[in-house]
Amino acid sequence: MTMNTGDFQLLATDDRARTGRLATAHGIIQTPVFMPVGTVGCVKALSPDDLRDVHAQIILGNTYHLYLLPGDELIARRGGLHAFSGWQGPILSDSGGFQVFSLQSLRKISEGGVEFRSHRDGSKHFFSPEKVISIQRNLNSDIMMVLDECVPYGADRGYTEKSLGLTARWAARSREAYPPGSGRQLLFGIVQGGFFPDLRTKSAQQVCSLPFDGIAIGGLSVGESKPLMLEIMRHTASLLPEKKPRYLMGVGTPMDILDGIEAGIDMFDCVLPSRNARNGTLYTSQGKVNIKRAEYKEDDGPLDPDCGCYACTRFSRAYLRHLYVARELLAYRLNTIHNLHYYLELTRCAAQAIAQGEFQSFKAKIGAVYDHDRL
Amino acid sequence: MTMNTGDFQLLATDDRARTGRLATAHGIIQTPVFMPVGTVGCVKALSPDDLRDVHAQIILGNTYHLYLLPGDELIARRGGLHAFSGWQGPILSDSGGFQVFSLQSLRKISEGGVEFRSHRDGSKHFFSPEKVISIQRNLNSDIMMVLDECVPYGADRGYTEKSLGLTARWAARSREAYPPGSGRQLLFGIVQGGFFPDLRTKSAQQVCSLPFDGIAIGGLSVGESKPLMLEIMRHTASLLPEKKPRYLMGVGTPMDILDGIEAGIDMFDCVLPSRNARNGTLYTSQGKVNIKRAEYKEDDGPLDPDCGCYACTRFSRAYLRHLYVARELLAYRLNTIHNLHYYLELTRCAAQAIAQGEFQSFKAKIGAVYDHDRL
Repeated sequence: MTMNTGDFQLLATDDRARTGRLATAHGIIQTPVFMPVGTVGCVKALSPDDLRDVHAQIILGNTYHLYLLPGDELIARRGGLHAFSGWQGPILSDSGGFQVFSLQSLRKISEGGVEFRSHRDGSKHFFSPEKVISIQRNLNSDIMMVLDECVPYGADRGYTEKSLGLTARWAARSREAYPPGSGRQLLFGIVQGGFFPDLRTKSAQQVCSLPFDGIAIGGLSVGESKPLMLEIMRHTASLLPEKKPRYLMGVGTPMDILDGIEAGIDMFDCVLPSRNARNGTLYTSQGKVNIKRAEYKEDDGPLDPDCGCYACTRFSRAYLRHLYVARELLAYRLNTIHNLHYYLELTRCAAQAIAQGEFQSFKAKIGAVYDHDRL
Repeated sequence: MTMNTGDFQLLATDDRARTGRLATAHGIIQTPVFMPVGTVGCVKALSPDDLRDVHAQIILGNTYHLYLLPGDELIARRGGLHAFSGWQGPILSDSGGFQVFSLQSLRKISEGGVEFRSHRDGSKHFFSPEKVISIQRNLNSDIMMVLDECVPYGADRGYTEKSLGLTARWAARSREAYPPGSGRQLLFGIVQGGFFPDLRTKSAQQVCSLPFDGIAIGGLSVGESKPLMLEIMRHTASLLPEKKPRYLMGVGTPMDILDGIEAGIDMFDCVLPSRNARNGTLYTSQGKVNIKRAEYKEDDGPLDPDCGCYACTRFSRAYLRHLYVARELLAYRLNTIHNLHYYLELTRCAAQAIAQGEFQSFKAKIGAVYDHDRL
């Protein structure tokens, strides 16, 4: 079946879990999907060929970082982020909101947008919903995200309610700045509402009433407890339209991702696998491995006997440990290859399990190894 | 023609320059050859496949570093450095002498050997000629080097003469510790003698009288002027037996290597291309490029249009600059791939030029771009 850019086709469901296909300007993505984070136009330590080898389908670029370095206009003059970076598959760009709102004392919010100072050089900048669309147009990403306010954890009901109103007005302005049919880039809205289920409902109603190509859940994994994250995630997922792709932003551990899939989420991103890789924490079919540990000094076995990645098929735990302890740059690349391969395989196998109506037993199998992570 | 391990076959000469083949336990090396430096069992930032892709024939491992981390006995238990690191081509191990003698105040020389403190943790160690052979036996390198004293630049005639006597006695003890025919590992002697031509002659006579598989020139590029380095290098090279491979240790720039080839040297190693790569200095057919420079910000062309390496065929100068400025780990890998490819291509083309009797015009072509480097 031919798909047009923006088409989202559900292939199978298993209770709330679902597998489908989303067509973007740079190819079709099979969901559920994990998106490696390529902050400044590069997934740290990896080349585009490494990404292809770990079967990445789509990567994420950070609007905030790319705007500051090397600059979105420079990237536009290079032909966009695909041409610039050499990654020819789909790219999702975030709105920069999460980074800007993490700057805390360095930013000032108004109806028009958010003023902030660069973490690099202290220079002053202003992101409006329209500006953020314009930056993402310059990047020519396949999926753009609207600017939203990420409410800090602990914000009270009054603040959160006021904030979600702003987020909704910004969402409408974003869509107006890039109306449906303007181009081949897709635009996703973001539901906020903090940790108040009724405010999540309100935000979902507002955002889902706009003609977005997909809907994201923002504002989770910001310091709350795991049960609270799961409660709000499940509640919010249940409010989202069935016919659009659903994206859970910035979450999480392998079990978080399976919990998300169970709740009907289609897309995920998180720095966890790549950041942990650089810290020597590796995800395997037998659980987490801290490759620094002395017990691996003389371990000639592969990191994960069930893994087909380059690190596992070519090197021993002893050598990976040695590279890590010696702070060799190759360690970061091999560890990142492995962890991303694990996450991508996890979502690929989840899709397969859903198609076969066996998602629960698949999740239980992974949960037998990773359940402690959620505690 | 079948070659046995240790066989060295001259294929062609062009004045003093020569091209040949050296058979090692892990394959035949075409000379002249450049050997990338893989300090702790890894050429910094590269995988074994990257090394194969840049056409590395043989890499170098540092005995001093590998002895300290992860330890030669651990490597022996892993099946040697090839099995441990995944690099299946030939490996040359140095003797550790250069590193130990660089420790200055941390080492004490005696007839028996040299006592030193680790730069890592201050722990005390002792290298004797026999110990260094034993370490390299554990590494199972294809070519072992004898322990020698690297005389510091500026040492007077008296010290240098006394030292080369020690180096000669250590050379004899090294050969006795691993007599010809003991195994498939080759053993090279090292000529010292500082910057006194007659002492170089004396050292060459002593070292070349022993049954080594090859002879190296040590103690150059230690702070002396370029003309003095070239004078001593040429003088020493002319003293070495024609039928054995000749190795100029730790030298140098592209033109140094061509000067060495012109003087009849067959093998080279140097940290320069890989270290410069990590500092953003790249060797191209058009001269050195400092990739940090603002002029490359919007340069969509390849780093070197005449280069077939992964960095040049897949990425623009603009992207390479961006990766470098953003301190992305991929920058170090791509830059290293490029610089090593340049050096390896340089020696490969030199071999071809020698075979065609056109070495001088080849050298002049490179010299038109790189001559300033020697000043």
